[in-house]
Amino acid sequence: MKVTKKTKVKRSPKRGFYDKKTIYKILDNHFVCQIAFVYEGYPVVIPTIYGRDNDNLYMHGATVSRMLLELEKGVPISINITQTDGIVLARSAFHHSLNYQSVTIFGEATLVIGENERLKALKIISDQIIPNRWDEVRLPNEKELKATKILKIPIIEASAKIRQGPPSDEKEDYNLPIWAGVIPITSIIQNPISDPKLKEGIPIPESVKELRKKR
Amino acid sequence: MKVTKKTKVKRSPKRGFYDKKTIYKILDNHFVCQIAFVYEGYPVVIPTIYGRDNDNLYMHGATVSRMLLELEKGVPISINITQTDGIVLARSAFHHSLNYQSVTIFGEATLVIGENERLKALKIISDQIIPNRWDEVRLPNEKELKATKILKIPIIEASAKIRQGPPSDEKEDYNLPIWAGVIPITSIIQNPISDPKLKEGIPIPESVKELRKKR
Repeated sequence: MKVTKKTKVKRSPKRGFYDKKTIYKILDNHFVCQIAFVYEGYPVVIPTIYGRDNDNLYMHGATVSRMLLELEKGVPISINITQTDGIVLARSAFHHSLNYQSVTIFGEATLVIGENERLKALKIISDQIIPNRWDEVRLPNEKELKATKILKIPIIEASAKIRQGPPSDEKEDYNLPIWAGVIPITSIIQNPISDPKLKEGIPIPESVKELRKKR
Repeated sequence: MKVTKKTKVKRSPKRGFYDKKTIYKILDNHFVCQIAFVYEGYPVVIPTIYGRDNDNLYMHGATVSRMLLELEKGVPISINITQTDGIVLARSAFHHSLNYQSVTIFGEATLVIGENERLKALKIISDQIIPNRWDEVRLPNEKELKATKILKIPIIEASAKIRQGPPSDEKEDYNLPIWAGVIPITSIIQNPISDPKLKEGIPIPESVKELRKKR
């Protein structure tokens, strides 16, 4: 990925990564991002779900959504996804830190118009959250498609920032009798809870079983 | 909290909450937020850690940080914290959703100047991540304090958005032989990993033990 003035990691530059493999791995491990845009002069940051396909992110929402109405104009946007992997406890207050993996993207959105591309994009978003669920459900009807707007954001200007590993203390502090290390944090998927209105005899589907194996 | 044009939840208004208790509970359950501001005309969204004390959020960073240099001018900012609690699987693709708890804040930052308030703010941020760790470590020296800038953001214009519970399908879809329900997602703290450079005989401190009990 080309490094630009916007994407260049300035604080702790050794934590910056610009290769697609690193950036896409983080993107593919998540489905919620924070998207920022300027609205009537002030910044707005909103969480939303996304799906990645090749060098594009897809997002969707209600046709009447204020955010999407603004974004489809092609205004500049900034996207961030951050995964916290651990609390880094140093011997000094100053060197406490977090282990994390973060991706930041700058770009503009375009409206996805063609019905085939729209359906494909909806499946991409669905697959990002839970692969193959799309094939198990009642697909969107005309009315539902009319109520849904889809945006595409090309991943052109992006960078990752990653910190991992143990704390890093001042040389003279290593002799202090203070515990130092990392408290790992992880996100887990728990047992599925059936809808109380579920008809009897309907088993947990493959998509849910596979997701639990994966995580 | 006063509801403003900016904080009013427009999409799914019944998911909007404006009381301090709800908003502060979500804030207190986290320590990483996404902060957005306008920089040279384009939006920037950056993850950072925070601590809450009463009606203020505190943030810190390097004195030379480009973000803090911009924010201390008192430019408009927007902050979001989002916790994903589960994937909501409906019978129809259209009604798939997420369970989540989210807080959005609009405001401006001011630079914290007094040395006492600065030290207090640093402890507040530290306590937000791991309570009482501050009392176990080597506190910041003059050089480290000089390298640290602290900002305060009053929580005046804020709202929460929460979705919880089972899926909600179209009436006629409840008869479909499709599994529906929720896959809960949760964040857990794992066993602490000692720094490979830790001197022998230093036990896991109280702060770490207490944090593990709490989560």
